[in-house]
This record gives sequence, C-alpha cells and structure tokens, in this order.
Amino acid sequence: MSRETVSHEDGAIYEFTPDLEALATVESGAELTIETRDSLDGAVQAESDVIESVPEEVNAATGPIALEEATPGDVLRVEIEEIRIVEARGRVITIDGFGLLDGYDDIEAPRTRMTPVSADGATLEFDDLEVPIDPVIGTIGVAPDSASYTTLVPHDHGGNLDSTDVTAGNAIYFPVFQDGAMLAMGDCKAAMADGEMCGTGSEVATEIDVTVEVIDGGATDVDLRRPLVETPDAWKPLASAETLEEACELANRDAIALLETEHGFDATDAYLFSSLVGGLEISQVVDPLVTVRNSIPKAYLSSPF
Amino acid sequence: MSRETVSHEDGAIYEFTPDLEALATVESGAELTIETRDSLDGAVQAESDVIESVPEEVNAATGPIALEEATPGDVLRVEIEEIRIVEARGRVITIDGFGLLDGYDDIEAPRTRMTPVSADGATLEFDDLEVPIDPVIGTIGVAPDSASYTTLVPHDHGGNLDSTDVTAGNAIYFPVFQDGAMLAMGDCKAAMADGEMCGTGSEVATEIDVTVEVIDGGATDVDLRRPLVETPDAWKPLASAETLEEACELANRDAIALLETEHGFDATDAYLFSSLVGGLEISQVVDPLVTVRNSIPKAYLSSPF
Repeated sequence: MSRETVSHEDGAIYEFTPDLEALATVESGAELTIETRDSLDGAVQAESDVIESVPEEVNAATGPIALEEATPGDVLRVEIEEIRIVEARGRVITIDGFGLLDGYDDIEAPRTRMTPVSADGATLEFDDLEVPIDPVIGTIGVAPDSASYTTLVPHDHGGNLDSTDVTAGNAIYFPVFQDGAMLAMGDCKAAMADGEMCGTGSEVATEIDVTVEVIDGGATDVDLRRPLVETPDAWKPLASAETLEEACELANRDAIALLETEHGFDATDAYLFSSLVGGLEISQVVDPLVTVRNSIPKAYLSSPF
Repeated sequence: MSRETVSHEDGAIYEFTPDLEALATVESGAELTIETRDSLDGAVQAESDVIESVPEEVNAATGPIALEEATPGDVLRVEIEEIRIVEARGRVITIDGFGLLDGYDDIEAPRTRMTPVSADGATLEFDDLEVPIDPVIGTIGVAPDSASYTTLVPHDHGGNLDSTDVTAGNAIYFPVFQDGAMLAMGDCKAAMADGEMCGTGSEVATEIDVTVEVIDGGATDVDLRRPLVETPDAWKPLASAETLEEACELANRDAIALLETEHGFDATDAYLFSSLVGGLEISQVVDPLVTVRNSIPKAYLSSPF
C-alpha cells in the first residue's frame, strides 16, 4: 500500500467539534504521512518575533481524516512510526497570561528563544547547550461526543494533550465518538519536558508517519472513555481535568478498570495493586485543562484490545 | 570506620520539631545502618488486621541523629547505599478518609492485603502477580526551621516525602535548620508506585545503610530551601504543598534557580530551558500535603555543592 500524504496546506482545524467534515477519507490499516506546521503558524522565525506576531489562531491540527469503518463505540489506534523535523529551527516562548510561572516579576513574557537544529540533525541548540531532538505530537485527537474544544484544550477526545509519550515507537488509542472518528494532529515539539512549564516545548513543523486502524468496539471488554497510550513497556491512560488532583483521580480510575478486567480483581484490590507499580506521571500543567498519565507496566496488563 | 547502628528500638519520633533531642551523635562522614519498623508499627500481620489495629501513631522515624558539625545554613547529604527488607512480608492497605479514591462506593476501606516476599527475596506476591522489590524510604527529614510537622506530613524539612527516588544508589540533600541537623527516617516500602494512590506502598521493616555528610553552607552558591535528590543521571528538587499545582510551581522555581547559577541564565531563560528537558514528576498525591519533583538531567547541571 502506498503511503498517502495529508498536509496542513490542504486543511487544518483549530477546533475539535462533533460535526467535523473530513479533509481525507482512508481505510483502516492505512499508512499515512501527516504534514504539520508549527503551533505558531510559522509566524515566529526570529527572537524578535513573539506570540503577538501570530496573526490568527495557534495550534493548527492537520485534518480531519475520516476512517471509513469507524463508528461510535469503536476504538481508533494510531501507531506513530516516525516524526521528522522539517525546518532548521524550533522556538520556545513565554506568553503573558499563560504558563506555570505566569505573573512572577522575574519572568519576562512575551519572550522568544530560537532553538536551531544542529548540523547533524540530532540536537537543538539553546545558547551553548545541546538538547537531544526527541519529537512529540502536542495536539492529537478525534471529533468529540457533544461539546466542542479548541485545539488548545485537552479532554476525553484527546486534543492538546502535550504528553512526551505521544512519540515515535508508541501508539495512542482514542474512543470513536462520531462516524469516521475524524483524526487530526499538529502542534509538534522537537523537545519538551514533562510539564511543559513555560507553555511550549520547542515548537516545530514536522512530517509524521502513522498507521491508523479501527478496532471494533464490540470485540473488546474495555469501555475506553479517554485516550490511552501504549509504549513498548507500559499502558498509560491519559486524563485531563481542571486540576492535577482531578486528572490523577480519572487516570487512576481508568488504570483500575483495566486491572479489574485483566485480573478479575475488585476495584479495591486493583486500587491497592495500582499503588505498587508504575504510577502517575505529569504530561502538562499549563493548558486550560491539565493532563496526567497513569503508567501500568505491560508485565501486569496484556493488550486490552 | 566501623558502621554504627541506630535502631528504632533505641528511639523513634512521630513528629519533626525544631527542638529535637539527639538519640545519637555522629561525625560528618559517618557510615550508619538505620533500623526502621514498618509504618504501621508492626501491628498489621494478617489481612484481618487493618489500620484500626495500630495502637498508637503511625510512621515512626528512627532517630534523630545529630551531626556534630552541622549548623543552620549548612546542607546535609545522605547517601543511600542499601535498603534491606528484614521481614517476610509487606502490607498495602486502604484507610477510611485517606487516599486518592477515598469515598468512592466501590473502594472498600479499611482493607489490608499482605504482600509476602518470595523465596528468592527478589519479589513480592500480590495474588498470583510478582512485584519486583525496589525499596523506598517514605519518611526522611531533619528538624524544621520553626513549625512542627508530624511524620505524616512532608514539607521543606523533608518528612513524609514518599518519593520513589529516595532509594538505594541515590542521595538526598536537606537544608540544615537546627544545630546537628537531627536526621530521622522510616516508613519504608518494599515497592511503591509514583503517586502512592491508595495511601501506602508495601509497608515494611528495613535496615538502611547510609553515609551522612555535612556540606558547609558558606562553600556553596546554592541557597537550598527544600530537599534535593541526586540520582545517577539527574538532580531533582522536591517540593510539597497543598495542591499539586503549587508543588509544581515551587519545584520549577528551585530548578530554575539551579540553572541560573550554573549557566548564568536569567530566570526567564532558565524557565524556557526547563520546558525542554527532564521535567515534573509526581511523588505522592495522598499525604496531607502533596509532593512533586522537577528532574534536571546532569548533562545540564553539575553538582550544586
């Protein structure tokens, strides 16, 4: 099967809505290359360009892409094979009114720092420091159930999850809420810390190779309600909420449900077991809702699908 | 130097106060073995024993141990060499009124699950699952500056940090607030998830080998205000606060201060850089205050001391 390309130049969204119209339609099993522009729409090309330089909205998500077979109740699996940086620099910025340390006297906002890609393509430069390039998809999701969310907001449909585990070598699963699922992605970072404290990683344009697959919801015992990441070693429910405490609670409930199904535990035993292995991880603490993961080692959980 | 033993049978505290009296006094550089009882004071030995079986307080911390040379403004380094499990089982419990999922209808509290140590000593058993033994010191700290904290509470003096990085092979640094520093530790777990969601790991009695060292506060540029962990690969400020968001803010401020000193960055550049590498990690979400870490890879930070 030849690899189809879907580019942000063909179409991109700034809001995940229940009634998205497909930019492209593919079959389950399709191998795609998704081209994304940087989250600042290419408007920040020097340190004198700041967030106010961006003419329109931020966080364009290329798509949406409809999956022919997907109907509500199914699960969409997106295997991330490679994320290629397609420009010579990323940029990391502060934004007035945004970020973990917004409002501190000694934190200047807006400020932009360019992070050039080194000659060998393996690292970014930040002053004289070299940061390994380890690309992350910041925004990825499907058409939501009923509400609409701008691409700045993470929720049960995915969206602005800003999770370092959404990277090459891993897969991410979404509940299908609408016919076609309506996958869109963008807002990639060449590097990002867990937490994304200043509100961005090194924002960058990319090409992303993925394989998309529809899993029949009737063929699984799992009632997937939120995104789930699969790494080589772990399964990680992702949850977004108003506070980190609420997000932890949701991600732990989701982990417990998976452990109950796998081992026949009741909820209390699954909860006790969840306190012994893996555990809670921070994705981001800055978007309008915050996101955490709950890592369950694969040693204790086979594929839920 | 022969290794001195300090046992919980000689003395243990249930509160870190500014005016602790030393159980033992040692010199900087001393190699010690600290014997700790399990956090439930040995009262839970079967699944029919629950939290209400504990006759007195919980979270005994063996000590305090005075360091002869330590005066306020110094830094205490505790290198953790080995944590040995000294009983045949740990126990993980739910407690009514406590834990991330406290109050959910399907979560029974109190409940106790025993986690026997396997014949080879390498794993714990939870039903038919095997959990690797990876011991953690739950409570470790020094005499605080002015307030007092029970051993259930984490704060700037350390205390109930419940951090998986407080383990063999790592070191933890504390600000010295009082003459002698007054180190105490206990509340070990044979295994624990990041988050400690149900409120405990596998609680267990241990012997801990440590080397303690006083670092002259005048000889360093760093104004250490809270605990700091050193792993083979990273430096991790630890911060405890009422909410995870506040704890993230403190841990990020501490990371930024270290990056400013090392690289001559201003606070904003240090903040931007902190969003690119390492990042925020969850220690525990259940104690009266919650605890997070901010990991800075050693590639970007040499020893602050």
